[in-house]
Amino acid sequence: MILNIAVLPGDGIGPEVTRQAVKILKAVGETYNHTFNFHEEIIGAVAIDKFGNPLPDKTIELCLKSDAVLFGAIGDPKYDNDPTAKVRPEQGLLKLRKSLGLYANIRPIKAYPTLLEKSPLKKDRIEGVDFIIFRELTGGIYFGEKILSDDGSYASDLCEYSEIEIERIAHLAFKTARKRKKKVTLVDKANVLETSRLWRKITTHIAKSYPDIQLDFLFIDNAAMQLILNPGQFDVILTENMFGDIISDEGSVIGGSIGLLASASIGDENALFEPIHGSYPQAKNKDIANPIASILSAAMLLEHFKLYEEAKAVTKAIERSLELNIVTPDLNVESKYGTKKVGNFIADYI
Amino acid sequence: MILNIAVLPGDGIGPEVTRQAVKILKAVGETYNHTFNFHEEIIGAVAIDKFGNPLPDKTIELCLKSDAVLFGAIGDPKYDNDPTAKVRPEQGLLKLRKSLGLYANIRPIKAYPTLLEKSPLKKDRIEGVDFIIFRELTGGIYFGEKILSDDGSYASDLCEYSEIEIERIAHLAFKTARKRKKKVTLVDKANVLETSRLWRKITTHIAKSYPDIQLDFLFIDNAAMQLILNPGQFDVILTENMFGDIISDEGSVIGGSIGLLASASIGDENALFEPIHGSYPQAKNKDIANPIASILSAAMLLEHFKLYEEAKAVTKAIERSLELNIVTPDLNVESKYGTKKVGNFIADYI
Ligand SMILES: CC(C)[C@H](C(=O)O)[C@@H](O)C(=O)O
Ligand SMILES: CC(C)[C@H](C(=O)O)[C@@H](O)C(=O)O
Repeated sequence: MILNIAVLPGDGIGPEVTRQAVKILKAVGETYNHTFNFHEEIIGAVAIDKFGNPLPDKTIELCLKSDAVLFGAIGDPKYDNDPTAKVRPEQGLLKLRKSLGLYANIRPIKAYPTLLEKSPLKKDRIEGVDFIIFRELTGGIYFGEKILSDDGSYASDLCEYSEIEIERIAHLAFKTARKRKKKVTLVDKANVLETSRLWRKITTHIAKSYPDIQLDFLFIDNAAMQLILNPGQFDVILTENMFGDIISDEGSVIGGSIGLLASASIGDENALFEPIHGSYPQAKNKDIANPIASILSAAMLLEHFKLYEEAKAVTKAIERSLELNIVTPDLNVESKYGTKKVGNFIADYI
Repeated sequence: MILNIAVLPGDGIGPEVTRQAVKILKAVGETYNHTFNFHEEIIGAVAIDKFGNPLPDKTIELCLKSDAVLFGAIGDPKYDNDPTAKVRPEQGLLKLRKSLGLYANIRPIKAYPTLLEKSPLKKDRIEGVDFIIFRELTGGIYFGEKILSDDGSYASDLCEYSEIEIERIAHLAFKTARKRKKKVTLVDKANVLETSRLWRKITTHIAKSYPDIQLDFLFIDNAAMQLILNPGQFDVILTENMFGDIISDEGSVIGGSIGLLASASIGDENALFEPIHGSYPQAKNKDIANPIASILSAAMLLEHFKLYEEAKAVTKAIERSLELNIVTPDLNVESKYGTKKVGNFIADYI
């Protein structure tokens, strides 16, 4: 198979972890005889520094003509806490999602047995947890009209949803549930929001085409509790953009290490793969950042192109590194392995 | 002191727990020589059943002329999961908040040492946790314009905030921090929302009048993680309506029992006190519902009127009941004490 992959390392630890993911994809290409072509472009704070634009046109063009995007991380503290800043790194990411039509963010959350003791939750709550969040990514309050009054004393954000935006991601969620434990939980706030009632209506309607799947509803406030009280109850969670942002981050810490979680953002024509962790600027260039989430996002990329055996080889190599304790200091304070060495071990194992 | 207290027991277990809170207030009145007058009205599903209106005018009138409102719980499953329902119990609560101008919901979250093992979080994360959430309660996406297109294929909800709505609750939060650990954390999504940037701007400005208080910022997605990873870092959390709904419910389970948490909703002219738990219809009339949250909300009522000694007597009696294990089955599966007996013990102790 020939794949053209756009590589957007971004800010902070983005470049160093993405480099390991590329290394792994190259190893897979050699071993399984695929041609993976990599082209790199900038995005985020580095792009603001260079061009005053967090998402230069050249970067969008590269992504549009590639088969997939491998993404690092975005964000720099020097652009935070300044409510008046006109350009912010995050705008680059939001615009990229919209330009590529990446409407579904897919986040698998799994409790690794070797890491149970690192979880903030007690063992009996977290053991065996294995669910996937489908977060709508190009609609809702993120992209509705924003108003700031001239005198600066009033602001508003509009949350909007249309039938088609809900339908396409709902189908993905139901199809995924079919291959799993056959349960979809819609998280919303239908007792307050009109948009949530639209989500409930459309999802209920779609569920009729999937009679083998059970559809449950949970208010977002209750979901935020249930994720802690009993995360084992979930299989596939379906939700809108902002609620998805919140519960997928909440969900990502219950397993013990956010350094082990990846996500895919997919649309009808494009797909982007990224680790869940942020740019973690404090760790930049220290060779301590955990590359596994980025490498797992490369495995999700392989799966997306139905290269299941290849993806399996990557996840097996990762499991082996965990078993042998060849991990970065976040997983083992006494570890002498850095970002590069962990990447090398996983690449060699493949 | 003479106080006219409106009692709104509401739905589910609301009536039985509120009855215990009234019993406790009567005991306090007798012991400390106060005249507390109680007047009861209906709200929620029971009011829909009777009048087709979740908040009858008579109920609003009673609340408006009372000094404080003691509230039970609201909600009935028969009105859930029906996206087309025209009247819902929750509308009664929302309208009551708006009619009484209850703009600040105040929720203290505390880890009780006797209940540490009931928490889903590991002991080292939860020990010593003691913070207060200030949630804005009459603005934001809850009350902005809601649209459903005629063909039912599009919906929207408007999130709005104005300077004054932010200022008044921000001042309350800073004043409270002054009496505590001197830290306010504003939770928002300023990297995406215009309203959040307004919150950040105004809160930053107000902070200048409180030079002894440290003001921090946290994005809501990060806050949802930090509440689990390290809840001990918080002192006073300040946030808008929807984010407050989510994190205050998330925060309420980390301590081990939501049956022990109360909240106050206050405005310039009125104040309402209620347990955090919902109407829990499955437990209705079984004499198993934990009355402590409702009794604690009565203690918050006493504090609100500066009856500090009286409030202290109530919390001391509650602590005694916990120590002696005179608690409902949610706290001790073998317990033979029901809602009423726990209420009686606490009343007698006072
Ligand atoms: C950086 C930010 C705009 C972004 C979001 O809120 O979508 C991030 O939190 C995420 O979840 O990818
Ligand atoms: C019942 C519902 C409308 C309400 C809210 O969202 O405000 C409840 O969840 C609460 O927190 O008091």
